[in-house]
Amino acid sequence: MTEETKEIPIRTAEAPAAAAPEGEAGESKKGAKKAAAKAKKEAEKAAKAAEREKAAQVSSAAGGEDVAKENYGDSCYPSKISGLSMSLGDLAKEHVGKPIEFHGFLQTSRKQGAKMVFLELRAPGGGIGANVQDIQAIAAENTEGEDVVSRTMIKWIGGISLESAVEVQAIVKEPLEPVKSVSIGGFELHIQRIYLVASAPIQLAVSHEASSNNEAAIPGPTVGFATLLDNPAMRFRGTMFNSIAKVRNVVDFTFRSYMEENGFVLFYPPAMIGAASEGGANVFKIKYFETDAFLAQSPQFYKQMKIAGGQRRVYCVSPVFRAENANTSRHMTEFIGLDMEMQIEKDYSEVLLMLQGFLLRLFNLLPQKCRAEIDYIRKFYPSEEFLLPEPGKELILSFAEGQKLLREEGPEEFRNVSDDDDMSTPQEKALGALIKEKFKTDFYVLDKFPTSARPFYAYTDPANPNVTNAYDFFMRGQEILSGGQRFHKPEELEASMRNKGVDPNAPGLKEYVDVFRSVGCPKHGGGGIGLDRIVAWYLNLPNVQMVADFPRMPNRLFP
Amino acid sequence: MTEETKEIPIRTAEAPAAAAPEGEAGESKKGAKKAAAKAKKEAEKAAKAAEREKAAQVSSAAGGEDVAKENYGDSCYPSKISGLSMSLGDLAKEHVGKPIEFHGFLQTSRKQGAKMVFLELRAPGGGIGANVQDIQAIAAENTEGEDVVSRTMIKWIGGISLESAVEVQAIVKEPLEPVKSVSIGGFELHIQRIYLVASAPIQLAVSHEASSNNEAAIPGPTVGFATLLDNPAMRFRGTMFNSIAKVRNVVDFTFRSYMEENGFVLFYPPAMIGAASEGGANVFKIKYFETDAFLAQSPQFYKQMKIAGGQRRVYCVSPVFRAENANTSRHMTEFIGLDMEMQIEKDYSEVLLMLQGFLLRLFNLLPQKCRAEIDYIRKFYPSEEFLLPEPGKELILSFAEGQKLLREEGPEEFRNVSDDDDMSTPQEKALGALIKEKFKTDFYVLDKFPTSARPFYAYTDPANPNVTNAYDFFMRGQEILSGGQRFHKPEELEASMRNKGVDPNAPGLKEYVDVFRSVGCPKHGGGGIGLDRIVAWYLNLPNVQMVADFPRMPNRLFP
Repeated sequence: MTEETKEIPIRTAEAPAAAAPEGEAGESKKGAKKAAAKAKKEAEKAAKAAEREKAAQVSSAAGGEDVAKENYGDSCYPSKISGLSMSLGDLAKEHVGKPIEFHGFLQTSRKQGAKMVFLELRAPGGGIGANVQDIQAIAAENTEGEDVVSRTMIKWIGGISLESAVEVQAIVKEPLEPVKSVSIGGFELHIQRIYLVASAPIQLAVSHEASSNNEAAIPGPTVGFATLLDNPAMRFRGTMFNSIAKVRNVVDFTFRSYMEENGFVLFYPPAMIGAASEGGANVFKIKYFETDAFLAQSPQFYKQMKIAGGQRRVYCVSPVFRAENANTSRHMTEFIGLDMEMQIEKDYSEVLLMLQGFLLRLFNLLPQKCRAEIDYIRKFYPSEEFLLPEPGKELILSFAEGQKLLREEGPEEFRNVSDDDDMSTPQEKALGALIKEKFKTDFYVLDKFPTSARPFYAYTDPANPNVTNAYDFFMRGQEILSGGQRFHKPEELEASMRNKGVDPNAPGLKEYVDVFRSVGCPKHGGGGIGLDRIVAWYLNLPNVQMVADFPRMPNRLFP
Repeated sequence: MTEETKEIPIRTAEAPAAAAPEGEAGESKKGAKKAAAKAKKEAEKAAKAAEREKAAQVSSAAGGEDVAKENYGDSCYPSKISGLSMSLGDLAKEHVGKPIEFHGFLQTSRKQGAKMVFLELRAPGGGIGANVQDIQAIAAENTEGEDVVSRTMIKWIGGISLESAVEVQAIVKEPLEPVKSVSIGGFELHIQRIYLVASAPIQLAVSHEASSNNEAAIPGPTVGFATLLDNPAMRFRGTMFNSIAKVRNVVDFTFRSYMEENGFVLFYPPAMIGAASEGGANVFKIKYFETDAFLAQSPQFYKQMKIAGGQRRVYCVSPVFRAENANTSRHMTEFIGLDMEMQIEKDYSEVLLMLQGFLLRLFNLLPQKCRAEIDYIRKFYPSEEFLLPEPGKELILSFAEGQKLLREEGPEEFRNVSDDDDMSTPQEKALGALIKEKFKTDFYVLDKFPTSARPFYAYTDPANPNVTNAYDFFMRGQEILSGGQRFHKPEELEASMRNKGVDPNAPGLKEYVDVFRSVGCPKHGGGGIGLDRIVAWYLNLPNVQMVADFPRMPNRLFP
């Protein structure tokens, strides 16, 4: 398959239309859509024509040969541009009149007759998120001096397809009025040289976001999520997905810094394990030389080994794997877990409050650090501001209190829910709505889950053998975190296993219990959070797959 | 299997001997080994006796019942201790005379007659590395006041097995002379209350490090590496492995902070991929519902997709998987890769210098941040100080220059090495020795590898089609990093694939090439480093498995 026959039928939000062919100069954005159907053919023609004309056409300044021919064309080694190497965001008055280098992407292009072309250039992001760095650039006919710009050169520039990678040498100038359509509107670039690093295919006027540049929504065709996932590079260039990526990064780094500040030590649990230690359901099996291995469903046993090994507090940020054959909005087969485990000195509430402290800090930081991104995303996926409890009034209900609330004030179908049965997802959502109404918070904890609803390692409440020192955390009625105290004495752990019908001598489990037999292990507890879920539920996105760069689902392993 | 029948036949370096049974008080360290064989039986007897005697024995202060019985025993809920909650490292004069809480491990124990027992208590690490926090504690008979300590209590304390988890309430005092055997020697703890959180099995006098507490090596039996790997909690408690873990953490965080400072954005490549994209050799296969998936051998394609997607610079710290059935000192089937990829503005040397900058910073930081750890590890694994080039004189040889050096000055068997063939490991080591002698550096780069020795994605040097813009980095003659510029134009990439006999339409590869067809991708390059290898080669350890917490080898998937 060659480049010419491959077309990606989407364009980024930042690219309002295909390059306007010659003769349609000055065309408005609204008009651009009409031109789009013709754009591919015309631009291809124009590009080929430019090639032919480069040698043949008589430039305005010389006879027989294009005097500007060294100033454009394919990028080569060594590069022909030179100037100040700087970030667009650092442009200042002092740079006016000086040449700079730009390495980035052609975002929009608009020819104005034969003598001028207006471009929008976008810098590659380090700056992920809504705050893209783009700037207007102009190539205007110039027949004098060293930096000649010929009509042929202008025609060639007009033929560059949007989203191509380009390198540019240009003089910084101040526009008469700030340019509104770009983020760096106080300056513009007057092109001296421009080279094509790699050409994009022709972009069609189909948006993969429903609006552009914070203006009102553009009506018209959009693309499906599967198409976006099939085209990762195009998706990553969109403002929407960059904004989500920024929020995700802030969640990730807030977790890491909170953990470090509190004396937690980073470690790496293994992905491949020797036995399906949590019962064998939903585990991926690997062919491991002459035997089988499995992909870890949780780093929990390994966190506990670190605590038994004398660490006071540990955390990890690692992929975990769940072989659930469910194409739902909540599940991926691989996701990044934020996990922590800590020694308990007196009471497991030390763990619960540590986790709560992280989430409170996060929910307070996000609106500050990601204001522009959250606002941008809300244009397409509206969400109410995330309601937090007043400081000191954080909500921790027992599981039994939660069920009581559902029984007494919840929907009809939940009038008979029992304190001994786990909650279903619909129950959780109904409880979330009740709590939001009653306590004015989107964030709360359900504590003391019944023993019947927790795995064998959940520590029994010393004051009540029917419940555990284990909890779930909720955002907008959806669970995001599960954790609790674990058994630290081998004999108690083994008894709990037998009570649950689990064989303590099964492969993987024996090695686990042996850890507690090999030393005296401190009391400890922890919890794990799905990184994508926090982001998805915070932003009220329709699914968790939108948050991951390369989501894995039962029906998706590419790219 | 119950606790009583399970014995772990090793002890940590910090625990010089099993608890001395009553009547052998004051026994020397040398004598301890003789006592070890008897220790288990005696200590079990002692523990049971203590239980019986708790009720029956007449304490020195009261008739019929042990008046101290509330001050020791099993830990319970709520905890019976109270005092200042603080790190041992923060102890200061102002705390003298006050009670503190301690939650940690019993490290050594020595009874002195019936009226006194000396303990060493070790705090759990946040403070990983050689700088363990341990302190001397004393329980002495006290018949007056509230905080009575009875002889029965002292006997019970003497029976606690080493490496048990304990909680202690104690008054801070200043010893007459600093205690030399512990790190917090300026204070000691006078025990008021002590409870057993979880009991360790009896420890035998077999060291898993060859020396203890920075003193001269203890002669005597040691344990094999497999035994250590089978007992992770015990291994993690040793100073050696904590010191290695500290060095590893510093490498990891130096990479992360260097990347962040230079504008790189963290992302997560997937572990599960849809096709064995690098040819199918050495790839683990997963049963993925009705189809097959594979474990990623490298995040490279995904880094490139992020660059094509408009990111300027990205990095990741993620597990990668290699199904190499080789039990060597250099290989693990799963390891953590430090990976980066960046847009090239003018020349691929930008990437090479970025990576070199990281390693130079790291090698300058390590001796400062890990002095104690490096010195500790060298007692067992001697290594020379890592030689760095003078600033500004970093060594970058071309591959051809390296081969020439080998031909002209290397060992006899390398007199005929060719510029077109890849180097073998013995060649690399010989070259490392030559370079060290000639240029006085353990760190250098080999650049411009021949096209024949690099994969299809390696960018051809525009000035010489026989070599690539690709390089390896070396430490002490061993490769730690591989990287280079990659093709960014789909037609060039496809041509390179066909030249190498690789089908550009094969599953996984087609999706990869399509990424470059879908946009105009900037010039870019990157590199990847094995986290464990840097640590192992820097410390001159015998293998990389010693560096990982849970190493994975063809014959090891547990724990």
